[in-house]
This record gives sequence, structure tokens and C-alpha cells, in this order.
Amino acid sequence: GAPAGGPGFGGFPSQQQDPLFGYFTAVAGQDGQISAEELQQCLTQANFSGGYRPFNLETCRLMINMLDRDTSGTMGFNEFKELWGVMNGWKQHFMSIDRDKSGTVDPQEMNQAVSSMGYRLSPQAMNSIIKRFSFQGKITFDDYVACCVKLRTLTDVFRRRDQAGQGMATFPYDEFIQCTMSS
Amino acid sequence: GAPAGGPGFGGFPSQQQDPLFGYFTAVAGQDGQISAEELQQCLTQANFSGGYRPFNLETCRLMINMLDRDTSGTMGFNEFKELWGVMNGWKQHFMSIDRDKSGTVDPQEMNQAVSSMGYRLSPQAMNSIIKRFSFQGKITFDDYVACCVKLRTLTDVFRRRDQAGQGMATFPYDEFIQCTMSS
Repeated sequence: GAPAGGPGFGGFPSQQQDPLFGYFTAVAGQDGQISAEELQQCLTQANFSGGYRPFNLETCRLMINMLDRDTSGTMGFNEFKELWGVMNGWKQHFMSIDRDKSGTVDPQEMNQAVSSMGYRLSPQAMNSIIKRFSFQGKITFDDYVACCVKLRTLTDVFRRRDQAGQGMATFPYDEFIQCTMSS
Repeated sequence: GAPAGGPGFGGFPSQQQDPLFGYFTAVAGQDGQISAEELQQCLTQANFSGGYRPFNLETCRLMINMLDRDTSGTMGFNEFKELWGVMNGWKQHFMSIDRDKSGTVDPQEMNQAVSSMGYRLSPQAMNSIIKRFSFQGKITFDDYVACCVKLRTLTDVFRRRDQAGQGMATFPYDEFIQCTMSS
């Protein structure tokens, strides 16, 4: 039969007609949900990491956690679609700052990238972030994504606790651990 | 010549006489410092992960960060020796809670392990930690170590900001990001 929600019934494309949906179902398998391991395989095959290296599993976990509103630890189609859009944006941004097309960015380029995303951080904070996410003075795309995801998640956590917008946030221990351990 | 600080000169064993020192120099190579990648190789060869799987690189970075007092991003001998002791303690603890010797622990065992280390966390915080560090309901040794390292580092960060011991800590944005991004 005609897919429910098809153009004939209101003009909104259904999931089934979204070109990404076939890809999603192939990756998700029988349970219809994408786990961190399935996401790793899919991003490795799409060569997001460059050079066909395996995409960092830890980064996959961080991404699922970022979008996982139902706290299932897996991704449904809508979450996957959102991630796919975000990932392509990050990949384009990364390629635009990687001027020599080496597949990695250097600390100065990373510094400019983080500033251009609107984060205002001290040189000390930037240095500790770059040290954490670089290897031999270079930052790969996987680590760039891990850095973007963590910065976004932790900034959101902070803002929810800084409702007065004073740039100061107070946490009880249990909530501090819960927010920071899972991001 | 006789090594400085040898037993003839005060009775303290020198670095050169420490059985771990030869191992350290073999792992560290020419620069005399262990990077995250060198630590990963060494822990994989020592089969800390079990089944000769590669030890999680992300966990290696977290461990170096935990002990890296000179913020070099690498480990000298004293830091390596401290880590080796801590790792063996964690491995023994992990093996003692892994009652069926499967090489993984389940969420309930992990819950008890975290409590027995002295952390007092709500069921919600424990659940989000376990979800973050488990795969298909099981926690491997690598992920157990990553969890221990993060809990220790983040609890230390919190305590430094909770000098009154009230269980509440206030952070400016920049410091919050600096502490939580690098742990």
C-alpha cells in the first residue's frame, strides 16, 4: 500500500521516502537502532576518518550520548538524520581549516575553529583542550569531532546551571559527576 | 661508574636498579617519555585488556592526563611507576568483582565496585555512568579503568572547588570547561 504520510496525504515526505532511510536501516539492522559500534562501522565505511582508519569508537559514544534524548544508548532514525547533518557540517568546517589538505589540523587552526564556533575561552583553557585532543601536535577529524561534541555538551550543561547568565554555575556533587562523567 | 644514589650511597635503590626501569626505557624509546600510543602498546602487550585486544587509546590518554603533573602529555619514569601500581590494583579489584571470570563485569557488580571505592552516588548518577561505560550490558577492563580515572579526576576537581565541604561547588565557565574537557 501507499506509505502513510506520503505526499498524497498532506505533502510531508515520510521516513520511507527519505534517501537516508535506506542507509539507516542497513546500518541499524534488525533492532532498528544504531549502537555506538554500528555507528563506528558506518562512519569508517563512509571514510569520515580519512585514510580508511577505523573511526574512533569513543567519539561515536559521545555523539550518541549527545543526541540520545530517550537515554536508550542507541539512535533511532531522527537522531541519526540529525547527526548526519551535524557531521557533514563539521567535516566541511574541518576541511576548510585544513588548508594544506593533510587530513589533520594544527593547534593554531583548531584555536581559530573553536573561536569561530562562538566559544570564548582563555588561552589556558584552549591549550589544555588542544593538548587533550591532539597527537604529535596534530588533530585528526575524529578528535576534532570528539572535541566539538564535548564542548557543545558541557557548554549546554553549564548554561542550564547558569540561568542568570553570570558566567558562574553551581553544582551539587552528584549532578556534577552525572553530567561530566557521561559527556 | 657506580650509579648515583645506589645502595652504597645511602641505601635507596636508584632508578636504574628498579626492576621496572628496564621495562620503562624499552617502552619509552629514545625520548625517555611514554606517550599515550606507547602506553597503549605496552598495556596491550601486557594483556591488561584481556584476549589481546588493543587496550583503549582513550583510556591511555585519560591515565596520562591524570598523572601528568608537568602537563607534558607524556609520562616519565616516576609517573609510569605510579600508574603501574594503580593499574595492578585496579586489575586485582576488577578480577575480584568478575566472579564468573568472563573478563567483563555487569552493571550490578560495577555498582558495588564504585561504592566500595568510597563514592556515594545516586542511582540516577550510577545508571548514567554505567550506560556510558558499558557495551551490551557488560563493562570491559579498559572501560572500567576509564571510569575509575574519570571518577577520581572529576571528584578531585569538585573537591578543590568545595573547600567548605558542603557538597556544592561553583565554577566560572572557563574553568568548568578547562577541567571537564581534559578529564
